[in-house]
Order: sequence, then C-alpha cells, then structure tokens
Amino acid sequence: MTSTSEGLLSAVDDHTTELVSTAVRRQLVIRTTGIFALDNPALGDAVADRRPLVVWTPSVERLYGDELRSYFSVHCPSGFECFLLRRTEESKTLGAVTDICEFAAEAGLRRTSPMVAVGGGVCTDLVGIAAAVFRRGVPHLKVPTTLIGLVDAGIGTKNAVNHAGRKSILGTFHPPEASILDLNFVATLPRRHVVNGMAEIAKVALVIDERLFDLLESSGSQLVDSRLREPALEADALVHRAVHGMLAQLAGNVYEWGDYRRAMDFGHTFSPYIEVASEHEVLHGEAVAMDMALSLCLSSALGLMDDASRDRALRLLLSLGLDLAWCGIDVHKLWESLQSICEHRAGHLNLCLPTGIGIHTFVDLPDIDVTMLRRAHDHLAAVRIGRVATEEDPVSWRSSR
Amino acid sequence: MTSTSEGLLSAVDDHTTELVSTAVRRQLVIRTTGIFALDNPALGDAVADRRPLVVWTPSVERLYGDELRSYFSVHCPSGFECFLLRRTEESKTLGAVTDICEFAAEAGLRRTSPMVAVGGGVCTDLVGIAAAVFRRGVPHLKVPTTLIGLVDAGIGTKNAVNHAGRKSILGTFHPPEASILDLNFVATLPRRHVVNGMAEIAKVALVIDERLFDLLESSGSQLVDSRLREPALEADALVHRAVHGMLAQLAGNVYEWGDYRRAMDFGHTFSPYIEVASEHEVLHGEAVAMDMALSLCLSSALGLMDDASRDRALRLLLSLGLDLAWCGIDVHKLWESLQSICEHRAGHLNLCLPTGIGIHTFVDLPDIDVTMLRRAHDHLAAVRIGRVATEEDPVSWRSSR
Repeated sequence: MTSTSEGLLSAVDDHTTELVSTAVRRQLVIRTTGIFALDNPALGDAVADRRPLVVWTPSVERLYGDELRSYFSVHCPSGFECFLLRRTEESKTLGAVTDICEFAAEAGLRRTSPMVAVGGGVCTDLVGIAAAVFRRGVPHLKVPTTLIGLVDAGIGTKNAVNHAGRKSILGTFHPPEASILDLNFVATLPRRHVVNGMAEIAKVALVIDERLFDLLESSGSQLVDSRLREPALEADALVHRAVHGMLAQLAGNVYEWGDYRRAMDFGHTFSPYIEVASEHEVLHGEAVAMDMALSLCLSSALGLMDDASRDRALRLLLSLGLDLAWCGIDVHKLWESLQSICEHRAGHLNLCLPTGIGIHTFVDLPDIDVTMLRRAHDHLAAVRIGRVATEEDPVSWRSSR
Repeated sequence: MTSTSEGLLSAVDDHTTELVSTAVRRQLVIRTTGIFALDNPALGDAVADRRPLVVWTPSVERLYGDELRSYFSVHCPSGFECFLLRRTEESKTLGAVTDICEFAAEAGLRRTSPMVAVGGGVCTDLVGIAAAVFRRGVPHLKVPTTLIGLVDAGIGTKNAVNHAGRKSILGTFHPPEASILDLNFVATLPRRHVVNGMAEIAKVALVIDERLFDLLESSGSQLVDSRLREPALEADALVHRAVHGMLAQLAGNVYEWGDYRRAMDFGHTFSPYIEVASEHEVLHGEAVAMDMALSLCLSSALGLMDDASRDRALRLLLSLGLDLAWCGIDVHKLWESLQSICEHRAGHLNLCLPTGIGIHTFVDLPDIDVTMLRRAHDHLAAVRIGRVATEEDPVSWRSSR
C-alpha cells in the first residue's frame, strides 16, 4: 500500500474524547514514452497485477484499443476488466460514476484492485470519483491522453462532476496512486484539443512562471502546430515546467482546508459560467483562456498590471489559438455567478490576478463591480474583431486569428 | 479549522516526481445531557455560528422540532438552514445525498459551513456522504438520536449508501468534526429501536469487552425496559464502554487501508444479506444480532469456542429482546453473498469469531462451508422455537421471547 494512517485517542475532559487521525498518501507522477509498448514497465509496475478495472474512452479505443488490451494481457496475468466510458463534459454526472461502480461491483472488483483511467479530463475525473466512493475508496491510477489531462486534470487530487446545472459542485479529493504521463498522446489529438490544453499551461505561466511564459511566447505556436513534437526540447521543457508548477502549488495546499487563495484558480472564476452557459460548447481550457483575458483586463483596470504586460499576455493567448471572449456572455449573469464562486471559496471571491508576467495577487468581490466587468468584456470583444489595437502592434491580433 | 494538511514534493528519479500529502483530522466525541437546552453550549460551540445546514428527520421534527429551531436561532445569530430528510434504510441512496446537496447549493451553503445531522443512522450516513462530496467536502457534525447512532453510526468516520441492491456499496470515509451524544434521546425511542441499538453494544462486548458483557448480562434487560434510564449508573457505563471500545478499534485502523481484519466487523458478514433479502424489514442491529448468533454457532462448530460460552452469548442476545434467526434466510444465497464480502475485504473473508466472551479470532472462507452454515442456521431456528434447549436452562429461551 502506498497510503498509511494512524489514529490517536485521548480524553480532552470528562465529557470529551478526541480522535486525531493522520493519513499519509503517496502519489507518483511518472513521465514515460510509448506507454503501451509491451517492454515499457511503467504502467504495469504501477498496476502491479492487482486485477484492475481499466476505464477508457471511445477515442482511446479507436486509436489504442488493441495496444491497450495487449499491454494489460501481458502485464496483468491475474486478469483485468475493461469499461468503455462514453461521456462528455455535458454528461459528466453522478450517473456516469454509478455506471462505473455498478460495472465494478458486477465484475467483482476487490477493494485492493485499482481503477485505471485512460482518457481525457472527463474520464480521469469520473474514475477519480468512482474510485473515491466505490466500497468507500479503492486505489486509482490516471493515464491522461489529452494535453489538458497531462498538465492539469490528470495530475491533481481533485475530481468533480456537474450536477443540476452547476459546474463541479460534487466531487472528492482522492489522490491517485500514480499519474503516468506520455506526451506522445498529443500527436493524435485534434488541434482544438491541443489549444485547449495550452490554456492551462498559459495559466501556470501567467501567475507563477515567467520562464514558462517566455517559452510559450517563443515556441508555443510552433508547438501547437506540431502537436508538441517540435521543437522537441521545448516540448519537454514546456510540459515539465507546467506539471512541476502545478504540483508545487498543489503540494502547498493539498486539500484546500482553510486556504482558498489559490494561484491555480486563475482562469477558473468566470470560466464555470461560460462553460455552463455555452452548454459546454466552449471547452474547459477555452473558457479558462476567456476568463484569463477578463482577469488581465480587470487587473489593468485596477492599476495592478500595466497595459503593455496585459497586451503581451493577451497576444500570447491569441498566438496559441485561444479566443479571448465568448459572444454569448451575459455580463449581468456572469456577475451573479460570482456568488456561487464566493460560496465555494468560503465567502470571498479570492480572484487571482496577474500583476505582471509570472506574478499575481488576489482581490475580493468589493474590489470590482459589474461595470468594470462589462468594460473588460467589451474591450475583449472589440479586440477580437480587431477594432481596438495596441499601439505596439496594431494588426497582429487580427492576423493571428 | 480542525483539520490540517501538508504536501511534500520530491524527485524520485529523472522521470518520477513524488507528492507525499499528510492530512490530520481532529474529531471530537462529546457527551452531554439536554442537548437543545438553550443554556447548553455543546452543540452551539461545535457549530460556531458558521451558517450551518441542519438536516433532521420527521421523528426529530415531531419530538424536538421547536426546541431545535429555538436552539439554532439563539446559537447561530448569523443564520442557519433546515432540511427535513424523509428517508429510510430502504431509500438510503445517492438520490438522497444529491437532494441534500441540491438544497445546500440553493441555500448558498459556504464551503466552511458545516452540515449538521440530527437523526438516526440513515440521516447521519446520508449527511456524512453529502458533506464529503458537496464542493468536494465541507465540515459536518453528527447528533445521533437513536441508540444505534449513539454507539455506532453516529461516532464513526464511515458513511455509505445502498445502490442497485447492494448494501453500503458506495460511501466515504469523512470524519465528522464532532459527534455530540445525548443519552436522553433514547427515552423517546420505540422499544424495537432500543433493542436494535443493543445489538451493536453486544457486538463490542462479545469480541473485545468482557466487563461490558457482564454489564449487559446483569442490567441489559432492565436498561431496555427503562429506555436506558434505570439503573442510571449502568446506563452511563454501558454507553461509555461501548463508545470507547468502538473508538479504540477505529483509532487503530481509521481508513482501513490494508487491514481488513476488523473486530468491529463481527456481526457484519452475514447481516448485509439478511438486510437486503428482507428488504430492510429486519433492522440493521437485528440483522447484526442474527449474524452474531450464526457466528457463535460457527465458532463452536469449529471448536474455537466452548458450547457453554456460545449458549451464554445466545441467551444474552435473547434477553435483550433480539432474535437469533430470520425465517427468510436462504442458506445457499447467504453463502453466495460471502463472495461480495470477500471482495470488500480484499479477497479474504476475515470472519471475526468470538473464542470466548470478550476475545476473538479471524477465520477465512476455506475454514467454513455451506453445510456448516446450514447447521448453524438450523440450530438457531430450532432454538428460536424452543425445540433445542441448553442443559443448563431449558426454558429460558422460550420464555424470554
């Protein structure tokens, strides 16, 4: 077992007994190449022939189905079960979690047997929750096959589903035993999904890692075009820095108990509204980019960031193929949606705003207002159609679209 | 906050990063009297005016509704929300959990606001899971109002719901911040529910606490009749020993990672089948008693326990008003149900059997067989109708019914 716990019982007074329990969990993030090559032991070692339930998606089945089955046949001589998960962000619900759990129960999955998610963020999230609640918790492993999974959803401890029109309202913290990252998956992604993942990388760059920003600025567009194959060194560096940045932030606040000022929430304050309002037509990373664009404008409006840095950051998003605004935004409703965000962050908005490239601060709800938000949105809408230009480079935004 | 966590990031090798996260949770078990008296600060202090969502049951509403509202009005000047939960063991499902979460979302429950369960085991279980998954975890408090809640469901860290005909297949470990125990609730319980709770107390006695057994033997029947009011000292001692025994076992194995040999699983191997097969007509404690009776017979059949101790234990169960067998048992199906128990205990049955009064051992599936189980059942069925008698006391079993 990679997890250990202990409990200490003591009397506080005549009427009160205290139980202090300590849980230590170990989570590995393993980088590999050719994850399903029969002679690659990384995934097999992590599964350790514990009769896993492997959950994958139709895309994975189409591109890697045979390889996957061969790999598990060789590395799990005691057997394994497969479940094909047909869900999208729109159907990322508790019903999907119970589908997985019912299959696991029928298949006789043992409490020590891991669930293995091979897929994008929807798949790793759903399997993460299923593993958290099936028999009150079984181990799980994540093999993210999308860029957003490789740098974000597939390496974290948080999982969530949407419920009753609310984004990520139900979920768990349930660290995977291991996340196994293979950059080769990016080669088979549709361009839109590469761009989608770039948003989360840009997020890390903008708030905590100036060198990552420079890397995105110099090679981001080429890396999108090449699906992270060229330039190869830069591709490695990009993912390594993004993953490490994310993990370092995670390590500082694993369960988010009491600290709701999270740099990694940058881009995740306005985006839930956009995702839900667009009925998930706008992908998660795309919505995060629009949120970051709004936040950059708010930061400059508040005098926290100079306009040149703001424009540099907006240009970066555009150069990666990300859009800055969604036409369907109702600013009044967007403003109202912040109420739920405040509830989630214990009564405060804790809006993370860059104050330059790679640094950030937090502002609260009273620091902004709906007019400021409307102006930020209008500015971005204008930028999108090229009616506003920076002094520096009046045409690049238009041409990069 | 009563919980703290930390994370440590380190490089294992060139390709592997390790994140070790430590979570420390503090859980209080507070004994009080007159919990809703306005001048009793115990519950109010635990809630600490954090705008709780208080979930209670129709029985609690009928008996204590006005007192409850007055209490929270005084002790939560910042406000509180109420949710009346109409669920039974039969409808202890994920749907009930999402009902609570949807109400919490509509009410704008903050992430730092606790859910407070005031009710029996069904209520505390459902609120425990709701609190575990709402916004990926909010604090919760348990105020058990049944005897089984006071000594078992209301003080543990485990919560579960039934799903697709499987007992407790989905759930979480989510320690409450505090369990607040008031024995006075027992005074308003129907006799059947007092008896039901006595089963879990007898469980603790039989496997780890001979003195508790002696106490049950000398005063158990009177305590049932008086709804734990008389003799008063014995009532206190009874609950104190049962709770402490349970907590001590819990402390040794808080999250059940890797150790599936649990003394507190005594009575919980055959009982899930009985509960489900009877469509929950047999209450949890009643099923636990029948399971304990079967286990006692198996223990004597295996030569692990002498017949006199077995009969003394069976007589105790009868004297408390518990039945020894359920007429609807299909021994073949009962035997088959052990497969799922093995899956839950990582491939082994780990059947806890008393080897005397207050001591126990574990046996595995190959140690028993369906014939042995049938004989145990037949013996108990005969005992129930008085056809078999102990040499010692041939009539007491019949008359004690």
